[in-house]
Amino acid sequence: MPDRRSFLTLLGGAGLAWPRSVEALASRWSGGGAPGDDAFWQDVRAAFLIPHDRIYLNNGTLGPSPRVVVDAVEEHGRRVAATFPPGVAWDDLKGGLARLVGGDPQGFVFPRNTTEAMNFVAHGIELDAGDEVLTTDHEHIGGLEPWRLVTARKGATLRVASLPVPARDASQLADAVWEQVSDRTRVVCVSHVTFTTGTTLPIAELDRRCRAAGILLAVDGAHPPGMLDLDLSTVGGDFYASSPHKWLLAPQGTGLLYLTDPWRTRLWPTLASGGWDDLSLGAHRLNHMGTMDESRLAGLLSAIAFFEGLGMERVEARVRHLRRRLQTGLRALPATFIASSDAEELACAMVSFRIDGVDSLDLQAHLSRRANVRTRVIGEYDYGWMRLSTHVYNSEADVDRVLDLLHDAVRTGVPAR
Amino acid sequence: MPDRRSFLTLLGGAGLAWPRSVEALASRWSGGGAPGDDAFWQDVRAAFLIPHDRIYLNNGTLGPSPRVVVDAVEEHGRRVAATFPPGVAWDDLKGGLARLVGGDPQGFVFPRNTTEAMNFVAHGIELDAGDEVLTTDHEHIGGLEPWRLVTARKGATLRVASLPVPARDASQLADAVWEQVSDRTRVVCVSHVTFTTGTTLPIAELDRRCRAAGILLAVDGAHPPGMLDLDLSTVGGDFYASSPHKWLLAPQGTGLLYLTDPWRTRLWPTLASGGWDDLSLGAHRLNHMGTMDESRLAGLLSAIAFFEGLGMERVEARVRHLRRRLQTGLRALPATFIASSDAEELACAMVSFRIDGVDSLDLQAHLSRRANVRTRVIGEYDYGWMRLSTHVYNSEADVDRVLDLLHDAVRTGVPAR
Repeated sequence: MPDRRSFLTLLGGAGLAWPRSVEALASRWSGGGAPGDDAFWQDVRAAFLIPHDRIYLNNGTLGPSPRVVVDAVEEHGRRVAATFPPGVAWDDLKGGLARLVGGDPQGFVFPRNTTEAMNFVAHGIELDAGDEVLTTDHEHIGGLEPWRLVTARKGATLRVASLPVPARDASQLADAVWEQVSDRTRVVCVSHVTFTTGTTLPIAELDRRCRAAGILLAVDGAHPPGMLDLDLSTVGGDFYASSPHKWLLAPQGTGLLYLTDPWRTRLWPTLASGGWDDLSLGAHRLNHMGTMDESRLAGLLSAIAFFEGLGMERVEARVRHLRRRLQTGLRALPATFIASSDAEELACAMVSFRIDGVDSLDLQAHLSRRANVRTRVIGEYDYGWMRLSTHVYNSEADVDRVLDLLHDAVRTGVPAR
Repeated sequence: MPDRRSFLTLLGGAGLAWPRSVEALASRWSGGGAPGDDAFWQDVRAAFLIPHDRIYLNNGTLGPSPRVVVDAVEEHGRRVAATFPPGVAWDDLKGGLARLVGGDPQGFVFPRNTTEAMNFVAHGIELDAGDEVLTTDHEHIGGLEPWRLVTARKGATLRVASLPVPARDASQLADAVWEQVSDRTRVVCVSHVTFTTGTTLPIAELDRRCRAAGILLAVDGAHPPGMLDLDLSTVGGDFYASSPHKWLLAPQGTGLLYLTDPWRTRLWPTLASGGWDDLSLGAHRLNHMGTMDESRLAGLLSAIAFFEGLGMERVEARVRHLRRRLQTGLRALPATFIASSDAEELACAMVSFRIDGVDSLDLQAHLSRRANVRTRVIGEYDYGWMRLSTHVYNSEADVDRVLDLLHDAVRTGVPAR
């Protein structure tokens, strides 16, 4: 990690030349951008503040914002400090988001993260003693703990379906969830893409089954926005919770909740401020949270422009290309278990694996020391897998370097951390 | 309002020379600082990004951060964007805050604002149908709406005590609240300092009465931290909710909740994430909210250092001095009703008034146009008062200029906005 002086030197200065408008970004990136077009993606990498020798493969935890987003946050903060707070461009924000991830602009709420979004859902519906909430053994605490709390407080029950690893196909996943539904099930809460293995669950199919059974479907969609060419109006589910500070590269602490129509006037707000009971506001009632950090939303608006400039189709193709390259390399490693699915329709931009006889936390420390690589180890549920995420700022060279290090690790082992 | 280009020019550059450590700030401000020591307070003003011709008298809504706070937020954000998030210095933050506003470092929770803090309280206790919550007709929506929602949802009742305007003494205020207590009252929720008139309520006396009656006391303390030389360990109340982005000049969207001891393990978290039910964490359970905007907390830490450098005793004396100068001037105005108390022990750094025959919103627009003055009109409860706040960056000249304009307004009226 750079020390403070070299860090500030590194970051100082050059930012102003970078284009900020959607139009300028789109124009810069108007040609090229095929998944293997290295020159194009090197130019994208240059839009970031990530040090050149850093291999960051943990976007699944937190996405680094490009310079245009950092600039937008700073400019907003300085205007507030100068006593001229610019306010939030709500229509631009909701409209831009709807263009990028689909859905109706009227459905968007902006909590601080997926965790808060899911708490809004769990607290906002009426759950009774004896009701059951069904989830899986691949949920993140952000999607899980709100239900653990609410069921504990109300005398309801939390049931956990076990998902196959690696998953074979969509119907196997849908069935694994559905086996645990009972006549007391009121809510199914599952990930769209699991944080454990990057597996895409069949939300549309689960939505069909839930609607037929009168069960609510809450989706932990922390990962897809900014990673997949998503359409919230067709993905399914009554509630979709996300964290644009992951793949959408918005500032840390930027969340999202998409409410389908009936819930915009039906959900009880969890954080009440003025207007919470003014149903004419629809979902926007839930954006009334008192004075909040509006610079986050200025940053999100800039992040949306960045992705509109790139185009989500190009982004999804690139991040899948890099993940496939990684996964293909992992398959060639001896003694390696890949927890992520082989099926492309279940896969995305994250892959998880474990090397026999190598503790994943030891491996993580080793990769960090050897080549400044940042990874995530899925210690949750005692899985012990290493997870690697690939995003637009990563290169084929990043992937190949890590694969080389993993080959060495298999051959010679890694020191205990 | 400056346009974008002149704004950026205005703010660019000079920031790095300003001292950032508590020690350097304290050393710069080691001598002087009496309430009327103009040279000293001009140097303090130079620590801000407020344009030199701006008269900002609305700190009661949002405090402008000094440059050191803006720098801390930006540096944190850039480290996150470079994939090296620094994390939160929890012990420094809680310890610094305890030095500045009193209380036990273990009691601090950091929501986004007073509104969220009060929602945590209203949702976190067990309120039943038929219970009563007592509040006043001088509460801000941030302290009020959480109770409106929770009482509506649970079939409880919200009662509203009427406070005297202007208030004469502390016992008159305590009695006005207490008259509305019934044997169903479970919670009293009042402001420490009202946003309407800047009147200090007798929290310690209400605390004594509430304890004797087995009633919980929740305090909306949005204003005192950073304005008064406060001690949270003696102020009283079970819960103290605040917004350091007001008088403590922290970044927009920085809140505070102080929990007294039994509630650190007893309060249900409203936003559950990992560890919410680990009682060994005490109040810190409620700081587990998933990935949040940690740059706010870096900014708060810097704001605490700024105030430690100044010293709260000096700050309180100065802001009271300016408010007294303003209030004395207002008393000399004909046809002017002052809603704030004459008694210094009930007063602080805000004063509210109305000029007969002059609409306060027209007056607000007039002051803004004439001298770039920012004020707040208390339209809530149809009061229609203009509120002026005085903080460390204000000068006697600011106050005198506004008084001159008010004299003119009384004499000649102001145009309709």
